[in-house]
Amino acid sequence: MTVVVGIPASGVGEPRSPIVGDVVKKLTALGAGVLIERGATDASFATPASLGDVAWADSTAEVVAGADVLWTINGLPADAEAQLRPGQVLMGLLQPYASAEHAQTLADAGVTAFAMELLPRISRAQSMDILSSQGAAAGYQCVLIAAARAPKFFPMLTYAAGTIRPSRVLVIGAGVAGLQAVATAKRLGAIVHGYDVRPETREQVESLGAKFVDTGVSAAGEGGYARELTDAERAQQASALAKAVAESDVVITTAAVPGRRAPLIVTRAMLDAMRPGSVVVDMAAETGGNVEGTVAGKDMRVGPARVVGPVNLPGRMPVHTSEMFARNLFNFTAPMIVDGALAIDWSDEVIAGTALTHRGRVVHDGVARALGLE
Amino acid sequence: MTVVVGIPASGVGEPRSPIVGDVVKKLTALGAGVLIERGATDASFATPASLGDVAWADSTAEVVAGADVLWTINGLPADAEAQLRPGQVLMGLLQPYASAEHAQTLADAGVTAFAMELLPRISRAQSMDILSSQGAAAGYQCVLIAAARAPKFFPMLTYAAGTIRPSRVLVIGAGVAGLQAVATAKRLGAIVHGYDVRPETREQVESLGAKFVDTGVSAAGEGGYARELTDAERAQQASALAKAVAESDVVITTAAVPGRRAPLIVTRAMLDAMRPGSVVVDMAAETGGNVEGTVAGKDMRVGPARVVGPVNLPGRMPVHTSEMFARNLFNFTAPMIVDGALAIDWSDEVIAGTALTHRGRVVHDGVARALGLE
Repeated sequence: MTVVVGIPASGVGEPRSPIVGDVVKKLTALGAGVLIERGATDASFATPASLGDVAWADSTAEVVAGADVLWTINGLPADAEAQLRPGQVLMGLLQPYASAEHAQTLADAGVTAFAMELLPRISRAQSMDILSSQGAAAGYQCVLIAAARAPKFFPMLTYAAGTIRPSRVLVIGAGVAGLQAVATAKRLGAIVHGYDVRPETREQVESLGAKFVDTGVSAAGEGGYARELTDAERAQQASALAKAVAESDVVITTAAVPGRRAPLIVTRAMLDAMRPGSVVVDMAAETGGNVEGTVAGKDMRVGPARVVGPVNLPGRMPVHTSEMFARNLFNFTAPMIVDGALAIDWSDEVIAGTALTHRGRVVHDGVARALGLE
Repeated sequence: MTVVVGIPASGVGEPRSPIVGDVVKKLTALGAGVLIERGATDASFATPASLGDVAWADSTAEVVAGADVLWTINGLPADAEAQLRPGQVLMGLLQPYASAEHAQTLADAGVTAFAMELLPRISRAQSMDILSSQGAAAGYQCVLIAAARAPKFFPMLTYAAGTIRPSRVLVIGAGVAGLQAVATAKRLGAIVHGYDVRPETREQVESLGAKFVDTGVSAAGEGGYARELTDAERAQQASALAKAVAESDVVITTAAVPGRRAPLIVTRAMLDAMRPGSVVVDMAAETGGNVEGTVAGKDMRVGPARVVGPVNLPGRMPVHTSEMFARNLFNFTAPMIVDGALAIDWSDEVIAGTALTHRGRVVHDGVARALGLE
């Protein structure tokens, strides 16, 4: 029996769709069929012609009924979820830590749900890493948002009556998104500083041509983990960071902790010390914010600064983020398709580590513990 | 008697103010006084402290009453204009071709009005050229607007699951704004093509690392002026341009003709041949538009493309555009201040060529002719 990969329409406000023509071809080459809800790719600008040899469904219900594996951006709406069958496979950014009730509902339905946020961050799994691919887009977009709102040029500009000095951009958090923000701000010609509590990121920041904010404090501990800082060290770190913020025209914060509230890094006092017209973009706005006073979805004046809390940054560039999302899901799904049929190898640590629910249980230990479902 | 340069507040919707601290210092060094309306520089983020040694007025009327030379972005509101005295000097982007009635009003008031759009474009006057300095900002902003709205990355991006191809950006019009747009899109990593009817711009476009769209038609005529094209040549040009538009992810149009409606360059048929999700930014939206269907101030879907008609682009980055505006006005004004007093040398072709009205007459021949005031 041929495995069918189904793509229901994404919800309102989500322009991405996890399918593109190239990935359809790859699925077909593995012997899988592809079933797409009509209109699902309109907002990601993939025309039916570009998708090639696929079957079309008229509703989400029809996709759920006809597919063995469901590819989604953010999971399914409740009514479609209620329709899922035991053994059916659901993939996407399912927000595994968000609700015990939701995880239990998926388990009770007998669904094999893969929450891509749980993907083990080992090197073999990098090509499946949706948080990374979408994070790169988010970091890029943060810089465009900041540059468009800044009352200054980013690059140095020499004109007939003088020279404009380049803007100073500080990027806090040097994960995939932060590093992409550093790279993009550098491209635009700004003077860029990067910062992360993990001192081992210094080299990555510097390799992009940016300077690393030196707080004079190293949190490097044994075995590559960060150690607890003393109160004096913490104060020294905060004061160095406050100075870097005050000297910047633009601050971009990208510090997120999966499954937890984002850490507060830029305080109101730090904002108040910025120059009038400064711009702060808080990439973590949706998970509580790295900046005091951020509101997700708002662009507000806070003291002398403009604080922007953008939501769904990867959704702003759905052509490329859908393409990346589809490739990541394909790389994760391909090993499960053998001779056109679904064959999940549970001894594979990448597959097992990403599973949220399977055969009636919440199978991810970390999530079960965090949600009190043990 | 000390000459006083007055800066009234700009109108609603105009964040720029033509004064910064450095220029105050330079005026003071020439023996001039500076009188600024309170709050005039709030939107351009110049604090009173940063402006240094100036006098403050509580209203536009007070500035007009106390100043010999008025520096404005876009002229004065009608009630303030009615208050002007014979011999008083007014400077700014006065839109000299906009209205015969307005030009006559300034003449009747006996005002010496310098419309900076009329500045002779000779090399000695470059440091006074407001259209150029503000045009550079406009070109830069067009690219930021396009990048923020494009559903794709501008740069090439290699990630763990593949490679994202860079976007293709076409910039039509290779004046100051167009060249700055080319440079900015290149910075962001796009593949950039430039085009202008003036073949001598090819070298400038190519020197920025972009390709010039080759239409196979040269309009180069005698004495550096463009010659009239034949119908066949015109059709060949349009067809080559249509092909370049269809192949682009982003098109930025910057073709403006001072005092006249902007030429229509991108037709609806050209838009219809673009890929879904394409973005077109029409810098000439305020003067009629280079793109069929543009509406100034709107961001609209037209066929498969998104057509953006931004207004007051330099106003989006008022810190730097105010600084450039102020320096340009200073360079124009400085030769008129001798020992702290106003002394206009009418034998100077730059001064004479920029004057719109003087001693009761509309003195600019080109404007007088265009407005039927001869």
